[in-house]
Amino acid sequence: MRTQTERVDIQLGDRSYDILIGSGLLAQSVSFDGVQRASSAVIVTNPTVASLYSAQLHTALRTLYPKVLQIELQDGEAFKDWSSLNQIFEALLSAGCDRKTVIYALGGGVVGDVAGFAAACYMRGVPFVQVPTTLLAQVDSSVGGKTAINHPLGKNMIGAFYQPLRVVADLDTLDTLPDRELSAGLAEVIKYGPIADDAFLSWIETNLDALWARDKAALAHAVKRSCEIKAWVVSQDERESGVRAILNFGHTFGHAIEAGLGYGAWLHGEAVGCGMVMAADLSRRLGLIDTAYVDRLTRLIERAKLPIRGPALGSERYLELMRVDKKSEGGEIRFVVIDAPGRASMRAAPDAVVRDVIATHTA
Amino acid sequence: MRTQTERVDIQLGDRSYDILIGSGLLAQSVSFDGVQRASSAVIVTNPTVASLYSAQLHTALRTLYPKVLQIELQDGEAFKDWSSLNQIFEALLSAGCDRKTVIYALGGGVVGDVAGFAAACYMRGVPFVQVPTTLLAQVDSSVGGKTAINHPLGKNMIGAFYQPLRVVADLDTLDTLPDRELSAGLAEVIKYGPIADDAFLSWIETNLDALWARDKAALAHAVKRSCEIKAWVVSQDERESGVRAILNFGHTFGHAIEAGLGYGAWLHGEAVGCGMVMAADLSRRLGLIDTAYVDRLTRLIERAKLPIRGPALGSERYLELMRVDKKSEGGEIRFVVIDAPGRASMRAAPDAVVRDVIATHTA
Repeated sequence: MRTQTERVDIQLGDRSYDILIGSGLLAQSVSFDGVQRASSAVIVTNPTVASLYSAQLHTALRTLYPKVLQIELQDGEAFKDWSSLNQIFEALLSAGCDRKTVIYALGGGVVGDVAGFAAACYMRGVPFVQVPTTLLAQVDSSVGGKTAINHPLGKNMIGAFYQPLRVVADLDTLDTLPDRELSAGLAEVIKYGPIADDAFLSWIETNLDALWARDKAALAHAVKRSCEIKAWVVSQDERESGVRAILNFGHTFGHAIEAGLGYGAWLHGEAVGCGMVMAADLSRRLGLIDTAYVDRLTRLIERAKLPIRGPALGSERYLELMRVDKKSEGGEIRFVVIDAPGRASMRAAPDAVVRDVIATHTA
Repeated sequence: MRTQTERVDIQLGDRSYDILIGSGLLAQSVSFDGVQRASSAVIVTNPTVASLYSAQLHTALRTLYPKVLQIELQDGEAFKDWSSLNQIFEALLSAGCDRKTVIYALGGGVVGDVAGFAAACYMRGVPFVQVPTTLLAQVDSSVGGKTAINHPLGKNMIGAFYQPLRVVADLDTLDTLPDRELSAGLAEVIKYGPIADDAFLSWIETNLDALWARDKAALAHAVKRSCEIKAWVVSQDERESGVRAILNFGHTFGHAIEAGLGYGAWLHGEAVGCGMVMAADLSRRLGLIDTAYVDRLTRLIERAKLPIRGPALGSERYLELMRVDKKSEGGEIRFVVIDAPGRASMRAAPDAVVRDVIATHTA
């Protein structure tokens, strides 16, 4: 059964755009109505996604652009780097792509982040469209204009705030998503509960089985509500000078896990899942929430088949890795904490408390 | 004698900033009043400029920031590349620089473009200040927010529109500028005449000797008027979707010369000087201006000790190189032409006419 196409608006003045959420969107040129025409469009994707979905997107774009190129990046977080970025630049320059060329990012978070950053930099900025094919990208990374590559010295350290012209989230692409990646996406869906909407957290608790069964109506609601919350936060603070940082709940610990194990060992969502357990416990230890809430969140994260214990890197290594986090200032680590169910803020925490959290939640 | 400090405002809404022009500005912390404080500032420069001027800038910044780092890039257009950019990222990350760190670009166009692009990308954007030490950078590249690096397949192909918080143009730094670079800077000063202000062109004709003698009052007027014209153009079209492109008068031919000879063989301003002769002749052949005006402009360019004949790359090579220019669209080269003294626009031109221009003006 096809679900009705849902639409979420991101209000950012002259950088506003909408997100389309539904079934069968990929192959329909109407999904890209209103995106500017040009002499060429470029699909940036990876071999796995290309074999499944690029033919559909070509079908839609072929009617809109005289020339449609395709660039396939190597698959995985390890390739979210300068060399993938440069692969795009070389392909664009070799094909004579001008500054009206529209870049379509077809894939998960890595493809979206690299292609988006390439679009931000190529000839100082060309239009781009996000076509996310993972749950994580549909609910989080494709929305809000954060693009980046990793640097050997830090994750997402080199990037830009650069908004797409449209996001097209085709739920049918989730049918082929490996369970592990579905799970990783659920981490970011769950995240929106503690930071913004306790009722949504309850809804996820009730509907987790339907989400696991990839029920389209359940997925449509989860993606739509996630995007609405993200849109609401981003529209208040596009460049993360304040409230937007709450979207990084669980990410400070999570990034330390990813960096400590080497990017790609854990999926980003897995690290965030575990990071949320740690950040919730930190919030409890700071006297903000009670044990029952931490247990509730931990149980849901576990039901979503996400890790709830971090790797044993040693607490000093965790602290060292967290000090280079982008949210830290003057060497002070700043954490997103839960002030109450559905409400978050940023604050520093004593190293001793953070060490206790790490000791409690690592293998 | 010290000239009075001049101020030019760039009106770009919440990205507005001002340009200070005068003597003795570099060592005075008052020149940087209003630029936000942070735990650290980073001076990006090159060894030549560092040996002459970084001590002065350190004096000013030491009173404003607890920590002042210095990064020296290799000197020259050949180093306006990814590896210099990455040198900055590595230094910033290694020193634990956070996203409030202010980057100061102390040098000419290469330093400003690379440091500005690094500021645009580091942690998705940190504040930066331009401290241009060449005439070219003071009248052109430090103003207006264009930042970029070169790609082996094209000049300035990878970059961002990213505005500084301030531009501090200390005219005293021009005392040590090699004649050849003064000359290259004069090319961009002269440019503002044909595109926007015929009276300014006359003023330059009258005051060229004073400029050559590095008379501070003459330099102050030349820099100020150039910045005013640039500010007026940029405030109408920050991202070069229209009128801003007229600032590239002479640059389409000029970029072909630079790329054809290999970056760095000719200085950018030298290529622009020669490019203006070609673009003026193209305008004449298109019936827009008369021979007397082309001769007048050519004579001034020659008096500024700039080349008026291009290298013999062959007209097909010129055309090929110009087709990858950022202003070209769908493979059609778009030139800035002079419609009348002090007024420019963009247009395409028949290849045959362009070939004639190249044949006439190459060695």
